Amino acid sequence: MSASSQKSTAAANGARPACRFAEPASRIDFEYSKGPDVWSVFNPINFPTAVNLGQGFMNWAPSPFVKNAFIKAAEERVDVHHYSHPKGRPRLRKAVAEYVGKSFHKPASAQDDAPPAQGQLPQVRKTQEPLDVETEVQITAGANGGIYSVLTAFLEAGDEVIFFEPFFDQYEAEVMYNGGVPVCLPLIPPSSSSATSSSSARNPSSNEWQIPFDELREKCKSGKVKVLMVNTPHNPVGKVFTLQEIQKLAAIAIEFDLLVIADEVYDCLTFDGQEHLRIASLEGMWERTITVGSAGKTFSCTGWRVGWCVGAPHLIKATLAAHVRIVFCCNSTGSEAAAIGLEEAPNNGYFPKQIQEYADRREILMKALDGLGMPYSVPHGAYFIMADASSLELPADFEYPDSFKNQPRDYKMAYFLAKTCDVVCIPATAFSSKKNAHLYENYLRFAFCKDNEIEEAAKRLEKIRPFLKQKK
Amino acid sequence: MSASSQKSTAAANGARPACRFAEPASRIDFEYSKGPDVWSVFNPINFPTAVNLGQGFMNWAPSPFVKNAFIKAAEERVDVHHYSHPKGRPRLRKAVAEYVGKSFHKPASAQDDAPPAQGQLPQVRKTQEPLDVETEVQITAGANGGIYSVLTAFLEAGDEVIFFEPFFDQYEAEVMYNGGVPVCLPLIPPSSSSATSSSSARNPSSNEWQIPFDELREKCKSGKVKVLMVNTPHNPVGKVFTLQEIQKLAAIAIEFDLLVIADEVYDCLTFDGQEHLRIASLEGMWERTITVGSAGKTFSCTGWRVGWCVGAPHLIKATLAAHVRIVFCCNSTGSEAAAIGLEEAPNNGYFPKQIQEYADRREILMKALDGLGMPYSVPHGAYFIMADASSLELPADFEYPDSFKNQPRDYKMAYFLAKTCDVVCIPATAFSSKKNAHLYENYLRFAFCKDNEIEEAAKRLEKIRPFLKQKK
Repeated sequence: MSASSQKSTAAANGARPACRFAEPASRIDFEYSKGPDVWSVFNPINFPTAVNLGQGFMNWAPSPFVKNAFIKAAEERVDVHHYSHPKGRPRLRKAVAEYVGKSFHKPASAQDDAPPAQGQLPQVRKTQEPLDVETEVQITAGANGGIYSVLTAFLEAGDEVIFFEPFFDQYEAEVMYNGGVPVCLPLIPPSSSSATSSSSARNPSSNEWQIPFDELREKCKSGKVKVLMVNTPHNPVGKVFTLQEIQKLAAIAIEFDLLVIADEVYDCLTFDGQEHLRIASLEGMWERTITVGSAGKTFSCTGWRVGWCVGAPHLIKATLAAHVRIVFCCNSTGSEAAAIGLEEAPNNGYFPKQIQEYADRREILMKALDGLGMPYSVPHGAYFIMADASSLELPADFEYPDSFKNQPRDYKMAYFLAKTCDVVCIPATAFSSKKNAHLYENYLRFAFCKDNEIEEAAKRLEKIRPFLKQKK
Repeated sequence: MSASSQKSTAAANGARPACRFAEPASRIDFEYSKGPDVWSVFNPINFPTAVNLGQGFMNWAPSPFVKNAFIKAAEERVDVHHYSHPKGRPRLRKAVAEYVGKSFHKPASAQDDAPPAQGQLPQVRKTQEPLDVETEVQITAGANGGIYSVLTAFLEAGDEVIFFEPFFDQYEAEVMYNGGVPVCLPLIPPSSSSATSSSSARNPSSNEWQIPFDELREKCKSGKVKVLMVNTPHNPVGKVFTLQEIQKLAAIAIEFDLLVIADEVYDCLTFDGQEHLRIASLEGMWERTITVGSAGKTFSCTGWRVGWCVGAPHLIKATLAAHVRIVFCCNSTGSEAAAIGLEEAPNNGYFPKQIQEYADRREILMKALDGLGMPYSVPHGAYFIMADASSLELPADFEYPDSFKNQPRDYKMAYFLAKTCDVVCIPATAFSSKKNAHLYENYLRFAFCKDNEIEEAAKRLEKIRPFLKQKK
């Protein structure tokens, strides 16, 4: 039976023994012993007057054509207040198939999608079949609920799941709750010698963060790895994986018979002419890739909890079987509005306008960091900047919460910034394993999905200038 | 590694071998081999012109004060379009604590809630502490997402979970996906001798369906049982558990140190003066009961996906730890409107009016069944009627779908009804195990959460009158 039955604490105090539910299941244990949760510490409740460049949600409402679709549906229709089909509202599935589906280069079937000859890199397929709305699209309770469902659908106890650090911090628990074993491999940041505190210095491209291909192949040789998570555009790094990178990842996935979960929630947010490429669109990958998308990221409605999974029928069938039992179905009003969003956006210039607006916000934040002389990796996708705060010298007598005693330097830097400047950001090691924290402990993640706040943040950040060590 | 790697089918056909993801994880397997899914068969797509008394959602929009709160929030606020706190929006947690919390008779703490002396039945507590909005309420992705999260939070592999048949059909998979073993114990229907086809005959009360207490105690003696699901008011039976029944269940839960998941989503829908009682309000139960509620059922908004879990801090802490990783947070607009609903409903007569409206709908359906001479159990809660169609003689030459060959009699009856009358209902054994299907195979579940459709259903059902055998 449960290990938790041995852990009752009340009895030790001489009180009536607590029931065995004083402690959770063992799969939850690690969550309890993790130390301070970054989202609870760097939270508006703790920093009520702060400019919050921490958590990645927008401070604006969805674009009027989407927001009005939401309101109109809620006003006029009954069905948007009731259950959707467990697969998702047909209108949204159709819209995903038609808009998002274009970039999959879908083959006629998984069987028709032969991988390349051994030793060859898979190319982008030349096919262009439409997605089947009944069998190849699953609407999910956010992209998060989608990833969780895929893991429920395919993991056996002990299966390893690889993802690259720094990683979206939900992955780890999502894998463990489903019996899997997370395996983190570090993206290697550009050497700090290329970063200087002079504002005229070159800031490295986020694409200079290197994928550890050799280590990945080595890991896969154990035969224990079942899933590879590929997140591009990457949160928090802002890296947009290149064709060659996804080709090399795909070749490894094919060689070791891996399932790829392609977390592409920022697929519509790339800058500098960089093109988002889907690993599912490469030869041999259709049968083994589930691609995850997000209405919240696409239409600035993170609170609607609408996302989707796209993949071959055998993958979506299992994902549906999991998702329908986990949450039954997805929010209906949000699904209707997201469908209308995807239908209209290609014709009303929404996507290029959105990219330009984010590019402008990125520019303001980059200028602020330049002004301070704090180097950063230039993000080409998503809406975060990883700033390299190596040059920040923390005053020896500054006081941190007790829970920070064993946290890496970045936690202390983020706390110092929040206290000194009233600007909230997120320490980068919140997205890494303890083992590799040393690689990221000089980084801070700033979100630029905030309107009219980044300028104020820039002003406030001036207060740390005296603590930035000037390079010789 | 995965058993699924051995199951690839393409290879058998001489084609390129499929990747190992042609089959899902073993926890999903049973879903694939279950035979026809009742919701897919008895579905508007298959019966487009039918009166649908099948799935339990309303054919009306939420009450104006709730619907308008939803629309107004969506129009005027930004935050209702973005992430809520993982615990749930503070306003909704507060509203749940204040309205729903009243009936918990909360003790000062779990440690203060001593169970009764051995051999005594636990009484309703005399305490009346308010729920703590930070530690005792969790907003969930529907009641469904709440139950799933609790199971994730507390089940170890092999733990048994008991529920009473007929049961809400999601339970089984929710338990299995989390590594648990479902154990179904049958509610025993009133003897069919008490049911006759004469319209003047007495229809048994749904409360005559008997809980198998002896069998329950026997099962618990193995030491393998960890969780007891208690669903009152009961779907599909309509039984409202009496004080004595929940006392006896609570005594067993205390004796065998069980966690109780109290599925009380129909808590605001009881008829005939029956009072809904919370098992969590009994002495000794606060430390071991998580109570699940539903905004969808309370305010006719099943598509918003908003529910809640209420319980002692150690139970909610683990539930949060699960829920935050499964879906991150809950739909924000729906949460805001549900909060306003709970704030205003106690002052605007909403609940008594809603009960009266459902009682009226129940009356129409009962009269229709009376007119046909089809007996039923009178439901005292929820919005379903279990009709006893023993007297229905299916024509020998009627044709059913191939997939129905091995299904019990009720599937055939429901299909015959749908084809003959164009009225959809749900066969009762969709809510039972195969082992106990014989107990329920004469029952059909009719939903009465439908306005202005039940009368039409009544007319259409006349077509089966010639097939109803008259009792001597």
